[in-house]
Amino acid sequence: MTTTTEPTLTTVEQIFHEGRSARAWSTQPVDDALVRRVYDTVRWGPTLMNTSPLRLLLVRSPEARERLVSHMAEGNRERVRSAPLAVVVAADADFHEHLDALVPHVPGARDRFADEATRARIAREQAWLQAGYLVVGLRSEGLDVGPMSGMDAAGIDADLLGGTAWHSLMVLNLGYPAAEEAAFPRAPRLEFDAAAAVA
Amino acid sequence: MTTTTEPTLTTVEQIFHEGRSARAWSTQPVDDALVRRVYDTVRWGPTLMNTSPLRLLLVRSPEARERLVSHMAEGNRERVRSAPLAVVVAADADFHEHLDALVPHVPGARDRFADEATRARIAREQAWLQAGYLVVGLRSEGLDVGPMSGMDAAGIDADLLGGTAWHSLMVLNLGYPAAEEAAFPRAPRLEFDAAAAVA
Repeated sequence: MTTTTEPTLTTVEQIFHEGRSARAWSTQPVDDALVRRVYDTVRWGPTLMNTSPLRLLLVRSPEARERLVSHMAEGNRERVRSAPLAVVVAADADFHEHLDALVPHVPGARDRFADEATRARIAREQAWLQAGYLVVGLRSEGLDVGPMSGMDAAGIDADLLGGTAWHSLMVLNLGYPAAEEAAFPRAPRLEFDAAAAVA
Repeated sequence: MTTTTEPTLTTVEQIFHEGRSARAWSTQPVDDALVRRVYDTVRWGPTLMNTSPLRLLLVRSPEARERLVSHMAEGNRERVRSAPLAVVVAADADFHEHLDALVPHVPGARDRFADEATRARIAREQAWLQAGYLVVGLRSEGLDVGPMSGMDAAGIDADLLGGTAWHSLMVLNLGYPAAEEAAFPRAPRLEFDAAAAVA
């Protein structure tokens, strides 16, 4: 899929070098079908024993959007309100219920995750890992992806994820960049030698 | 870069659909320069306030490799021992020391992370997110990437990451697939409707 303003980013180098977090969006909508297609790709990424705890809530209705906005930090509200689509990225602490289907080659896999605290930790860690796959996948479709963690996660869980064991990790604002968008200057990154060592 | 057996995976769909965790490797080495190039790409991925806590230890010497092997779960030792390169993926709990350089547009950013427990949690979460970027980047170079978490993380931290605030998250076994490799049958994944909801 291409946008009206930018070509699809097909290589990983393009995705990382050209991808940005949007400050302003065009009016082009982001369809559920697009998110579904990206999910169908990135779900194949590896996780610990294929636990695959990533869950997504696509906040589509105006009512749900306003409830989500109310749980965001003050400075994040306007962007969550104005994004063509806001997605709550969550971790399912009951991922083990799917393991008979997900790891049929490991009988009793779900029993290895009987301890609730361990399961909650693994759910969060592996869902963050999958969130990395998801951000890359969404950007590869030409979307601007704005991750946001300044929020009352417990409030989101109670209000929007009630009745599940899903725990919100962050919100992704999705859209296509406005033609007149002037991005903030790019912040620097650590050089390899500051972030890596050889033993 | 291409391997002797497989073309470089250039699109995100190829990376996720064709990428696998290796069971056996060819003798082709994995150079530090390749890991450096991938890092230089994926470091541009977004993190919370550009905290960028991902750290890597490339375990290159035979002595360090054996020490790493000794901290792995029994069933993971042979693969860590035989991989062309093993990399410890870690989170730097002292990431805030770099924030004056990483977020020059937010004066006093490092002071927002004065609380040690909060900082340790954010370091781990954001490093897992970056680990997702890293796995995609490594696979885009045609590498097989085998993530492994069955290990004594505290033992690795004490033995191989001493003198730093780095905390190991997982080990990545890197190499090129052996020509005769017969991968395990691929485990299934959750359908979109099981992993996503619309509000």
